[in-house]
Amino acid sequence: MGGKGLLIVISGPSGAGKGTVCQEYLKRHPETLLSISMTTRAPRKGEIDGVNYYFRDVETFEKLIEEDCFLEYAKVYGNYYGTPKGFVKQKLLSGRDVILEIDIQGALQVKEKFHEGVFIFIVPPTMEELKKRIEGRGSETAEELQRRFNSSFKELQFITRYNYMVINDRVEDAVMKIESIVTAEKCRVERNMSFYSELKGGIDNDLSIFR
Amino acid sequence: MGGKGLLIVISGPSGAGKGTVCQEYLKRHPETLLSISMTTRAPRKGEIDGVNYYFRDVETFEKLIEEDCFLEYAKVYGNYYGTPKGFVKQKLLSGRDVILEIDIQGALQVKEKFHEGVFIFIVPPTMEELKKRIEGRGSETAEELQRRFNSSFKELQFITRYNYMVINDRVEDAVMKIESIVTAEKCRVERNMSFYSELKGGIDNDLSIFR
Repeated sequence: MGGKGLLIVISGPSGAGKGTVCQEYLKRHPETLLSISMTTRAPRKGEIDGVNYYFRDVETFEKLIEEDCFLEYAKVYGNYYGTPKGFVKQKLLSGRDVILEIDIQGALQVKEKFHEGVFIFIVPPTMEELKKRIEGRGSETAEELQRRFNSSFKELQFITRYNYMVINDRVEDAVMKIESIVTAEKCRVERNMSFYSELKGGIDNDLSIFR
Repeated sequence: MGGKGLLIVISGPSGAGKGTVCQEYLKRHPETLLSISMTTRAPRKGEIDGVNYYFRDVETFEKLIEEDCFLEYAKVYGNYYGTPKGFVKQKLLSGRDVILEIDIQGALQVKEKFHEGVFIFIVPPTMEELKKRIEGRGSETAEELQRRFNSSFKELQFITRYNYMVINDRVEDAVMKIESIVTAEKCRVERNMSFYSELKGGIDNDLSIFR
């Protein structure tokens, strides 16, 4: 894989707010595409194939696994979820940036297959704030909340596998930081070797330009 | 060395416009400091010690070399020029960003001693434009211009030793890219391990916060 577009992987523990940050980024950058996952679970009311998910049967999904068609996949409560490689690859090659909003296990799989991606870990400003956000999600029991919080807490350790950490205190600030990261990554020397060749090309054989 | 400030090394071939870019960046970021070089050459009319350069005698300079007090130094036409380590170190530790505008040989020396710096290579948009900028500098002979151009051209190869490449087409665009690079670098995970420890601290021993 390669091409001029950037694969922006937005990840982080549950409750850090990666969904909100992605939505806001996409609103400000309509040219950037969101990768759509494939799943074998049934569509919920209002969900559209190709918009919310690609809905496929188990047989199709497993065939795609065999053919190495996923950047990452997982089985959760009996259903498969995965990121099809083809869409991402095609869009990157055409020069579009693609955002992948994904949990930590998925992001680490993607990193194995596509190291050139930009891996951004969204963190809450404090653990107290993380607690509030987890609580604010719905009417779960104290035990469920505690389990979710413990899981998020444990996931923090994977931050060392990422390139960037963005504190999601105010969403606009987090989005501005991601914008800077995208701009900076596009300036990285290893992503610009073709410009370098172009700059040198045509001069190589004739350095005597001041005659 | 360490601390929270960023050492921003702005470098590139002669004629790329690194001086203009630095001045514009500093104008927009008065909190960022410009590193001042030390030299053994005599002050020119209007030059002030501690502003344009630190003017020192050869004995002092060589003593500082022996004591490993320079991030880099060179002897050019019989005069020493160097970047004193102390100023940079002290300002970075206090949390200030420091800019170093420096030629390629100097930048590569700095990289040996201070790998955590951010190394930015300024390039002209085209070689034709580089030629124009070199010509525009003064009344040198065709031979001198040709020598300068050849030297700049050869220096381009060192781009692979840098982290970022910024095309200096419009100065404002180049400065904006450097701003993004600085913001992004401050989000790099390895520069934020203290925040990570802080975030986890105080929770480690008591995960049961939902009781």
